[in-house]
Amino acid sequence: MPLPRLALTAGEPAGVGPELLIRLAATPLAATLVAITDRALLQRAAARCGVAIDLLDDDGSAPPDRAAGTLRVRHVALETEELPGQPDPRNAGHVLATLAAAADGCMAGDYAAVVTAPLQKSSINEAGIAFSGHTEFFAERAHADVVMMLASPELRVALATTHLPLRAVPDAITAALLTRVLRIVHAELQAKFGLRQPRIAVLGINPHAGEGGHMGREEIDTVIPVLGRLRAEGMHLLGPLPADTAFVPAMRPRYDAVLAMYHDQALPVLKSEAFDRTVNLTLGLPFIRTSVDHGTALDLAGSGRADPSSLIAAANLALDLVARRATHPSSPPRGEERGEGPILRETPP
Amino acid sequence: MPLPRLALTAGEPAGVGPELLIRLAATPLAATLVAITDRALLQRAAARCGVAIDLLDDDGSAPPDRAAGTLRVRHVALETEELPGQPDPRNAGHVLATLAAAADGCMAGDYAAVVTAPLQKSSINEAGIAFSGHTEFFAERAHADVVMMLASPELRVALATTHLPLRAVPDAITAALLTRVLRIVHAELQAKFGLRQPRIAVLGINPHAGEGGHMGREEIDTVIPVLGRLRAEGMHLLGPLPADTAFVPAMRPRYDAVLAMYHDQALPVLKSEAFDRTVNLTLGLPFIRTSVDHGTALDLAGSGRADPSSLIAAANLALDLVARRATHPSSPPRGEERGEGPILRETPP
Repeated sequence: MPLPRLALTAGEPAGVGPELLIRLAATPLAATLVAITDRALLQRAAARCGVAIDLLDDDGSAPPDRAAGTLRVRHVALETEELPGQPDPRNAGHVLATLAAAADGCMAGDYAAVVTAPLQKSSINEAGIAFSGHTEFFAERAHADVVMMLASPELRVALATTHLPLRAVPDAITAALLTRVLRIVHAELQAKFGLRQPRIAVLGINPHAGEGGHMGREEIDTVIPVLGRLRAEGMHLLGPLPADTAFVPAMRPRYDAVLAMYHDQALPVLKSEAFDRTVNLTLGLPFIRTSVDHGTALDLAGSGRADPSSLIAAANLALDLVARRATHPSSPPRGEERGEGPILRETPP
Repeated sequence: MPLPRLALTAGEPAGVGPELLIRLAATPLAATLVAITDRALLQRAAARCGVAIDLLDDDGSAPPDRAAGTLRVRHVALETEELPGQPDPRNAGHVLATLAAAADGCMAGDYAAVVTAPLQKSSINEAGIAFSGHTEFFAERAHADVVMMLASPELRVALATTHLPLRAVPDAITAALLTRVLRIVHAELQAKFGLRQPRIAVLGINPHAGEGGHMGREEIDTVIPVLGRLRAEGMHLLGPLPADTAFVPAMRPRYDAVLAMYHDQALPVLKSEAFDRTVNLTLGLPFIRTSVDHGTALDLAGSGRADPSSLIAAANLALDLVARRATHPSSPPRGEERGEGPILRETPP
């Protein structure tokens, strides 16, 4: 059987991304790895890591095996040679060209998925390009509505809001937003994770999920009505649950994913228990995209010492999702499984 | 050596509190346990648990040992017999009288510490009494300014704000509040935990601790200036740290406690990893007070099946603090250890 073709982007040339790709290529991952970046950049990164690597031009094929230490390259030239630790805005166009090639290649069926190494947003902005991140770039390129998910082997968390100041969170969580986000999470747990009737635990906005309106009314005014309407469509939703008890061991078997309302409500749990195994995943795209969940680590770039655990975890999750998609080639139509069993309406514990 | 005298309050008579006290008394805890509640209530609770217990009137003494299954009682009469699972507002005065007796007894030196079982706030309010919780009651009784801390064997978390709607949090965190809270946490880590130069990790308010003002300005406008002023006084403060990376294993050895800005920023981490070992602790009181970190579990009350793990953990922490206080009878004067070493000014990882 041919190995799935995995597109890899190196992100910021002056960050740890190129070295992480070299480290990944040295592992026996069962995939055809295609690095979309500058060939000479990879050679320099391999030298910095002290690793021997075979760089081959990608010919579009998918052979049945791959020797560790080999990496195919789809060459996208740098504008100027990288200086590790010092991002150069002149390479911003190069970085974006690699992302565009990866996204377009996934949509054309050239790659089964894309795994991205970290980029330096500020360097792209300094080049005068409006850019707010990988996720938004891919969403725009694919004309898709997306949701950010972070996943470890033990826990999947989708976010209703991501990088907002805390004071902007309560007003940002409208019924329309929650409905849109829950539809995407539900559909993607079916389509990409192969879960026929996914169970989503929805957190409250306020402490103790508002405690019946004693600590905020957003649950009563917004969250509970949305959950009611979506349950009537057949979704299996728990909550709104108090965030402080939603993650205790006894609760974990009761859901397939958590929808947190904001960044610091759930990511501390995920990262404290699985820091180097946490993967960033974009839901809603017409292709599979995973990413490391850390930054460019400019202080480590060039040293060959950056830890590739998160990139390896991201590649493994991407391959896992490719396999699940192959098993469940299409998601069941919405509502197919209505009436399959009682729909849980959980009382917070 | 005489055993420390530990005051225990039963909380809501119709909740699981009385049964939890019986379960605690059945353990070989090295303390003179004094239950401040109704004697007959304890007898009925013991019968519901199917446990034989020796109830003795407290004579104020502190013998050198205690047999498991014995419990001293300072009798405070119920107004009306309890009906498990159905709190009766007629007993609200009884509940408050037990708290007052415990606090006054601690301040008079009759008890080394008080450990509280859960009460039913709504039942006290239904009796027409303004009451917002144990913590506030003890603070008022002792004319003290207090901070709530939750502690497990692995992690201590103090809260700058507690049970506020999320939208009220950013404005509640003023420079004056943060200064007051940090002074209390610092002083109590010295006085009650015996840490000569405690290291406190302070979380940001916004995701990524605001990322230099890109995601909220509260860190720049409020948190960072307060930390600067308190470091100049000799406090060892880290931060403001991004909440999502502050709890990863590599960070834990770098601090003795975390100051979280709000409830759901930190309690999900603590409870997900140590649900039944998490203890609620009031900092700032002139005595040691610990508490279970769960509610009255009215659905379980009367069944004898409630899990005493959290009350046992609370009693153990109280005894641990009593022992530390005995070793360090007074905290070193503030600033004593200035210049002992470099003061960390952490850059978020």
